[in-house]
Amino acid sequence: MVKARVQIMPKSGVLDPQGKAIAHALASLGFSGVGEVRQGKVIDLELSETDPGKAKRAVEAMCEKLLANTLIESYRIEVQG
Amino acid sequence: MVKARVQIMPKSGVLDPQGKAIAHALASLGFSGVGEVRQGKVIDLELSETDPGKAKRAVEAMCEKLLANTLIESYRIEVQG
Repeated sequence: MVKARVQIMPKSGVLDPQGKAIAHALASLGFSGVGEVRQGKVIDLELSETDPGKAKRAVEAMCEKLLANTLIESYRIEVQG
Repeated sequence: MVKARVQIMPKSGVLDPQGKAIAHALASLGFSGVGEVRQGKVIDLELSETDPGKAKRAVEAMCEKLLANTLIESYRIEVQG
């Protein structure tokens, strides 16, 4: 079994209202010195595939088809053998 | 300036309907061999603090107060000097 973690972030230049909301909330709670905040998603997957290379390619296909909106989001895949 | 990344995941044992929905959607798209799927959040922060240790402690306080619901979520902080 292979475990994969996908991190999906809004591309730079894409508006991120969730990130902005967090930045405002942190400021109003008294946390100073916080600049830009961006929020994205993490998805952990357990795959029955045992070959890390094949698993990574499968997760890439999942990202392209379902997990990420590649117009506005970029993704990074980490596979733990 | 220090950049911090926070990864927030539902604790094991906590129901994760988003993860379940992703697993079902992947199966119906024909991706086989996908076991458990869990979805969490990533939050990237830019901090004006320059000391990585102080920055990490500040982000820990942010997680406890706002970013994570520590009853049902666990978080991990990475600070890039």
